[in-house]
Amino acid sequence: MKRIFEIDPWKLTSHTFSKEDKRLQESMTSLGNEYMGLRGNFEEGYSGDSLKGTYYAGVWFPDKTKVGWWKNGYPDYFGKTINAPSFIDLPILINGHRLDLATDQVSDFELSLDMHQGLLTRSFIYEGQDCRVKFEFERFLSVVIKEAALIKVKATVLSGEADLQVTSRLNGNVFNEDSNYEEGFWDALGEDESSRSIQLKTKPNNFGTPQFTVLLKESVREDGQVISGKVATKSGLVDETFEKHLATGESWELEKDVIVVNSRDVADSDQAEKADELMAKLQEKSYADNLADHEAVWAKRWEKCDVTIEGDAAAQQGIRFNILQLFMTYYGQDPRLNIGPKGFTGEKYGGATYWDTEAFIVPMYLAVAPKEVTRSLLEYRHEQLPGAYHNARMQGLKGALFPMVTFNGIECHNEWEITFEEIHRNADIPFAIYQYTRYTGDDSYVKDEGMDVLVGTARFWADRVHFSKRKGQYMIHGVTGPNEYENNVNNNWFTNTMARWLLSYTLERWPLATEAAKKRLNVTDEELAKWQDIVDKMYLPEDKDLGIFVQHDTFLDKDIRSKDTIPADQLPLNQHWSWDKILRSPFIKQADVLQGIYFLNDRYTKEQKEKNFDFYEPMTVHESSLSPSIHSILAAELGKQDKAVELYERTARLDLDNYNNDTVDGLHITSMSGSWLSIVQGFAGMRYNEKGVSFAPFLPKKWTGYSFKINYQGRILAVAVDKDGAKLTLVSGNDLTVKVWDQEVTLKEGQTQCLKD
Amino acid sequence: MKRIFEIDPWKLTSHTFSKEDKRLQESMTSLGNEYMGLRGNFEEGYSGDSLKGTYYAGVWFPDKTKVGWWKNGYPDYFGKTINAPSFIDLPILINGHRLDLATDQVSDFELSLDMHQGLLTRSFIYEGQDCRVKFEFERFLSVVIKEAALIKVKATVLSGEADLQVTSRLNGNVFNEDSNYEEGFWDALGEDESSRSIQLKTKPNNFGTPQFTVLLKESVREDGQVISGKVATKSGLVDETFEKHLATGESWELEKDVIVVNSRDVADSDQAEKADELMAKLQEKSYADNLADHEAVWAKRWEKCDVTIEGDAAAQQGIRFNILQLFMTYYGQDPRLNIGPKGFTGEKYGGATYWDTEAFIVPMYLAVAPKEVTRSLLEYRHEQLPGAYHNARMQGLKGALFPMVTFNGIECHNEWEITFEEIHRNADIPFAIYQYTRYTGDDSYVKDEGMDVLVGTARFWADRVHFSKRKGQYMIHGVTGPNEYENNVNNNWFTNTMARWLLSYTLERWPLATEAAKKRLNVTDEELAKWQDIVDKMYLPEDKDLGIFVQHDTFLDKDIRSKDTIPADQLPLNQHWSWDKILRSPFIKQADVLQGIYFLNDRYTKEQKEKNFDFYEPMTVHESSLSPSIHSILAAELGKQDKAVELYERTARLDLDNYNNDTVDGLHITSMSGSWLSIVQGFAGMRYNEKGVSFAPFLPKKWTGYSFKINYQGRILAVAVDKDGAKLTLVSGNDLTVKVWDQEVTLKEGQTQCLKD
Repeated sequence: MKRIFEIDPWKLTSHTFSKEDKRLQESMTSLGNEYMGLRGNFEEGYSGDSLKGTYYAGVWFPDKTKVGWWKNGYPDYFGKTINAPSFIDLPILINGHRLDLATDQVSDFELSLDMHQGLLTRSFIYEGQDCRVKFEFERFLSVVIKEAALIKVKATVLSGEADLQVTSRLNGNVFNEDSNYEEGFWDALGEDESSRSIQLKTKPNNFGTPQFTVLLKESVREDGQVISGKVATKSGLVDETFEKHLATGESWELEKDVIVVNSRDVADSDQAEKADELMAKLQEKSYADNLADHEAVWAKRWEKCDVTIEGDAAAQQGIRFNILQLFMTYYGQDPRLNIGPKGFTGEKYGGATYWDTEAFIVPMYLAVAPKEVTRSLLEYRHEQLPGAYHNARMQGLKGALFPMVTFNGIECHNEWEITFEEIHRNADIPFAIYQYTRYTGDDSYVKDEGMDVLVGTARFWADRVHFSKRKGQYMIHGVTGPNEYENNVNNNWFTNTMARWLLSYTLERWPLATEAAKKRLNVTDEELAKWQDIVDKMYLPEDKDLGIFVQHDTFLDKDIRSKDTIPADQLPLNQHWSWDKILRSPFIKQADVLQGIYFLNDRYTKEQKEKNFDFYEPMTVHESSLSPSIHSILAAELGKQDKAVELYERTARLDLDNYNNDTVDGLHITSMSGSWLSIVQGFAGMRYNEKGVSFAPFLPKKWTGYSFKINYQGRILAVAVDKDGAKLTLVSGNDLTVKVWDQEVTLKEGQTQCLKD
Repeated sequence: MKRIFEIDPWKLTSHTFSKEDKRLQESMTSLGNEYMGLRGNFEEGYSGDSLKGTYYAGVWFPDKTKVGWWKNGYPDYFGKTINAPSFIDLPILINGHRLDLATDQVSDFELSLDMHQGLLTRSFIYEGQDCRVKFEFERFLSVVIKEAALIKVKATVLSGEADLQVTSRLNGNVFNEDSNYEEGFWDALGEDESSRSIQLKTKPNNFGTPQFTVLLKESVREDGQVISGKVATKSGLVDETFEKHLATGESWELEKDVIVVNSRDVADSDQAEKADELMAKLQEKSYADNLADHEAVWAKRWEKCDVTIEGDAAAQQGIRFNILQLFMTYYGQDPRLNIGPKGFTGEKYGGATYWDTEAFIVPMYLAVAPKEVTRSLLEYRHEQLPGAYHNARMQGLKGALFPMVTFNGIECHNEWEITFEEIHRNADIPFAIYQYTRYTGDDSYVKDEGMDVLVGTARFWADRVHFSKRKGQYMIHGVTGPNEYENNVNNNWFTNTMARWLLSYTLERWPLATEAAKKRLNVTDEELAKWQDIVDKMYLPEDKDLGIFVQHDTFLDKDIRSKDTIPADQLPLNQHWSWDKILRSPFIKQADVLQGIYFLNDRYTKEQKEKNFDFYEPMTVHESSLSPSIHSILAAELGKQDKAVELYERTARLDLDNYNNDTVDGLHITSMSGSWLSIVQGFAGMRYNEKGVSFAPFLPKKWTGYSFKINYQGRILAVAVDKDGAKLTLVSGNDLTVKVWDQEVTLKEGQTQCLKD
């Protein structure tokens, strides 16, 4: 655990600059606006250890697969989020000396991310031998004009005199640290001195995936007016340089406006014109007005989604940081996009899309953002169905198999035990359709495009199961469950349960499909009968004596023991134990049986939940950032309030406190919904199904109160919890009946009701 | 299947040169003398597709491990057999034109490997526009002076005139095709023009493994006299060039003598002197006399080990080819060496040593070579015990774990399901001690060094098992059995059986250990008690109804079906099915339960053998070259003669007929004992235990007879089988009582007895 930012409800602020923590600081001060994003790299450059990272959503590269021992069926390439041309660079010379915090003496350092505004600021005093100069930087990626980045720098000479030189740079000479074969991913197409722009294209590839072209354009303003500097170009680079002599007490402020367009939206040949047009639009307004527009959009988002926590400032900061980072990564503008594990904050995990999105993020987005945001996430998968059919074919199977990791629907990952076997994803991903339909009450998706997804995946499962003649039941052999600390197991309870759910839900929904969908999909009676047979005869391992569902066939033969028996110096296991030792141990990386109970919550009795929780949680080491929140929610439901809080705390400030010691690589974006889920579904006990929404709140001991809002079927409902009970306000929308504990209340718009347990 | 050499009992001869088959031809015409070896590359060079390969035994390089997704415990490097400096090169110019069979027109091509002599010859007529020249090449690696290679070339002008230029080259500019990061493995240390030598050293590495230095020296003789040519050097290369004008009918014959020394035997600074000394020794005799010495040694080896087959010339050729190639790879001269899967015939599989040696080769060497050869193989493992202790520590376990792949005892392989889980090797390797002791009657090894191996591996197993409280038995979870088409299974019958055997044999032998061994190993009473408890309570999965041992815990839940149900166009499975499909199928790569029954043959009843054979063999696809012979032996024992012959045929000419379509990569050296085992242990039914040796021969229908000799406890016994029965002759040694079918016969030296079933 390491905390490098001060506690503040709306800000991440640090007054120290530590070179050892540079990468960590960069990860936490990342910015994004869905369209693009970047790590908290310094504008003036930095010669010390740092991970330079600028990323454009949906712009990726198929890096050749690297593998020690090839297995049949492995994909040819691994799609990577690529480090894209950098636009924030502003190299600075002070009396001929290159400003560089890796080597220079500085004082009064302050770095601050304003979470309400989505604005990053930084200031420090350069303590030179010949002069002292205060520098102030500010930057944001506009959520109004998504192609725009705005950067401001102000220099004030505090003593001495300074010849200052500031270069506004666009820099396409960037590389991925994680490139498999140390190759670059970009070719420079050209530089244009007069329009201050560069254009680059991703290198050609043999895999038939698209190449991307990007064009960056910069323009500098002083006192609100565009000014011209000396322009120099090199391959993939444009420098526009400005110089000024400052006496003591004098200041100089420059604003760098940047437009980034790419071939996902604009054809190569139109990019220059489009960038000119957008630049003109951006420069119609002053920096301050553009920032005000940007802030206004953020303010509106916060109004719908803010969570307040009273009595725990660290928790308050944590939940806002998580919401901010999620929304900077994705707010549903573009259904071609999804939420990568690192968002715009690092290279690791390469691919853009994992099942994490549907399992852990959809439930939160449903509640905090308009329903169109979640629908975009559903459409993303529908668009990628051809890739999913391809994946199933690669394994010699029918139907569609959604990938573990992808940009385009085609599987990128190459570990057999994951790629071919962690197939529970093929039920978890369609499960989001069920969640969406139940939460929004909107069944238009499941009737049509959604049916393509359900039938495609149902066909996969029907082919993937086998019938065990000995047992007279259907089985699923050779899988990896959500608990990746076991591989290639047989009859993983979660996988079998979710496959069965998928078939059953598809059977239930098929008669209601649109005529067009029915015609398109042409499901035969034999198929329906087969699906029903599998639903009826699916083997689900259970131990009646223990009263638990069994994680997989031979789990109970293990040396069953609690994680308390692991010596502290051997944790986390994944850094201390060889893989085989992890696999044959009883220790669980993340919720497995409990994940299934979480998903299909209303099918299990409290006793079933309790017995399974008490059996499995003591063996769960939560070495996936996705694990603690699910356990926290179940603990809360079972009245284990201290346990719920303890588990919530592992997710609330995962990155802010560098809990897993890997935030240097980037933020755990797809885990960021965890703390929200723990509060809303855990502490406040929110549940929903076809019948409506309900709560069963409790107040964590350390807190004096908390509140949040949810968007539910066209209404905004505010919930506040304190020691006196719960207060529900229907902020907007039609009358709503809500169940709180065992009480039903009907709220009218503007009305508040207070309730006690 | 592809046959490119003509059928001949003692020769591999081809009269066609096909460019498409160049690599295949090269593999099959490989030569070796234990100390070094090389593929059948052409002396004059070849510009077409070819795998150049020269290898020096025990000279290896730790190539950095290549892996897509790192797992804790993976080794840092993968030790590789490296392509070493080439010494056969003789580039030739004919009237300024470079001789090259990739582009030149040639006639009367003949390539021939004489298996009795270990001699490779090649001749052809160059059909130039200005002249016709006949070339004759000959080469062998001496088994008398192991550092010596002798090459002869003769050119005869058939028409026209020719200015011939022949360059005797030593060439250190060689690369491995399978280098993980396309790096070279050698640095040139220097070239010496006056002594015609080059010295090279393997590149430095960060893994603490030794670097190797090699020195090559050449010298050319004409009419038996050393001659001098024009010498030119480049980095890592020496050329000595000779020129001659030949008129029609004239001939020119040159002999290239080469000495290769390396730092395994000779310190760097002494290598030049040692090479001079060896060259002088070599050149004391003519080429013809050196060849005669070499042939005499081979003749003596053949006397002890030849197998004759009457009525099947292809089978006759096959068995001799296999024996030749094995003996060219290893004849026990140097206990620091072992038998790599490709020997000196290719790069693939990198490491030098696999468990194949103990499981498949030891039983043959025991019978066909002096017992010291096998003892050298045992000592090799003893020498590497420190590495085995290291491997166990890497997995957090006690005792010693022999590696899957190694040069020095430290594991090189990096697939978790193999490296960490295919641990049956840790019983199979010590099993060779049991085999050696029983076959030779010599228990001096097992009492002392052998006890180090037994106790080290016993300690590993005692830590690797776990006690299942539910079942009250010891189990072994998370293993891969010999059937690598299942990974990470629980309670693999073979593994559990062999682990139990190891503990039980160690317990039995411990009281007989030398005092020195007892003191060194300090086995406590608690340890002995624990081992005994594991032996008593080891879980061995069995199905009483089916009367079979169960391959692993959930095997019988599979979709059990015979391999006949696989469409022909999907075979071999490993080229057509994705890995997960292979894993969950019931199909078996190689003997698993049956391997255990083969090893511990006298512990099972005929009924047990029959039921298991009939259950498992129909599911076995034999996609490992190690599989068919084991099945053939059991089939023979069970009286399934046709099946025994069918399976024998898959191993007899595996490489000669390119049966697995991968002989281009090199020969299947470690499978070459398979055909011998099928004939001797299968058709002739040889068995041995503490009580003696026995036979139960039958004659395959296609054959009219076969014969072989075995070396048994100081005697040479000849066995001949034909339609009239078996004929046993005690060629040399003390009286011997042998059981044949159910008859006991006692033979005296020189005596022959004929028997009928």
